[in-house]
Amino acid sequence: MRILLVGAHGTLGRAIAEQLAPRHELITAGRSSGDLRLDLTDFASVQQALRDAGPLDAVIAAAGNLHFAPLADFTPEQYGIGLADKLMGQVHLVLAGQHLLRDGGSFTLTSGILTEEPIRNGSSASMVNSAVEGYARAAAIELPRGLRINVVSPNVLVESLPSYGPFFAGFEAVPAARVAQAYVRSVEGAQTGRVYRVH
Amino acid sequence: MRILLVGAHGTLGRAIAEQLAPRHELITAGRSSGDLRLDLTDFASVQQALRDAGPLDAVIAAAGNLHFAPLADFTPEQYGIGLADKLMGQVHLVLAGQHLLRDGGSFTLTSGILTEEPIRNGSSASMVNSAVEGYARAAAIELPRGLRINVVSPNVLVESLPSYGPFFAGFEAVPAARVAQAYVRSVEGAQTGRVYRVH
Repeated sequence: MRILLVGAHGTLGRAIAEQLAPRHELITAGRSSGDLRLDLTDFASVQQALRDAGPLDAVIAAAGNLHFAPLADFTPEQYGIGLADKLMGQVHLVLAGQHLLRDGGSFTLTSGILTEEPIRNGSSASMVNSAVEGYARAAAIELPRGLRINVVSPNVLVESLPSYGPFFAGFEAVPAARVAQAYVRSVEGAQTGRVYRVH
Repeated sequence: MRILLVGAHGTLGRAIAEQLAPRHELITAGRSSGDLRLDLTDFASVQQALRDAGPLDAVIAAAGNLHFAPLADFTPEQYGIGLADKLMGQVHLVLAGQHLLRDGGSFTLTSGILTEEPIRNGSSASMVNSAVEGYARAAAIELPRGLRINVVSPNVLVESLPSYGPFFAGFEAVPAARVAQAYVRSVEGAQTGRVYRVH
């Protein structure tokens, strides 16, 4: 398969690439590195990157920013960061890709454990991750030509504990390599509308 | 209690008012009618309405617009309608209200059955309803002074079948009066972080 991997140079993206590269053709994309450059928040940029990628069988999104802050201090604009980037960035990939992917192709998006298990400062993450999952459940029933869509919901990564550990006290961190398996399951499997929780 | 009811003149809002009015002081708010006028998409307007309402023990949101369209035709701007109105409108109420409600007060927001049960044309609704539920789960653990937050997720209303029926083929519509009970349970009960599904 020809697979576009967005966020290929992040911790998770590298682990996904390691699993898929031996048997697929990977095209990497990112804001500042990769075969293709794209700004997820800009629909035109996403459309251009997908056209430049050529024929694709799968799009994987392992990217997406959002803001962390105490609920008492959160501003509407700070919620807007996650809505524009991690939520609409992934939606942009689906909106553009639904017209471009080969028949039977797939989208695999990324949410996170905060959908169900909130933490302090994480109200934007819980909002956005929940939205990504709801969107994928809905898109799954409308995608044409056998296109599929799934979401991977990772726990905090072992590799991210040095930076995010204090926010995730008591969470059982999972290795990025284990989370990467869920992306493989989505791309190479046949399911759609699923959320793979690697918690 | 003193309760601010946003969207009081909608089908659901009227049913909620009927249940609560006999034993509480209701202040109604809406875009074009009610004791107070507010534009949910405008944070300053929401802040002003909450200040004008005076001391409050509860805020109920039974309002929120979003766009319905086939996934193939959806534009980012059309998703923006639901994000700005039904999602951020309700978030605006929480952001402003967390500093103004009396100790032990509550927020009751509205999502909908499309969180779990998608329909054609409903990808924005599934996205936004899921986001509202995830947000409330997260806000619940950070709200101060015993403030609570819950979400009511209604099925399609019996009263709405004339206009929305064709979209909800095979859904068991529920009377607005039954859904209104869930708002009463949220306001007069003691739970927080819950989604009351009236499906």
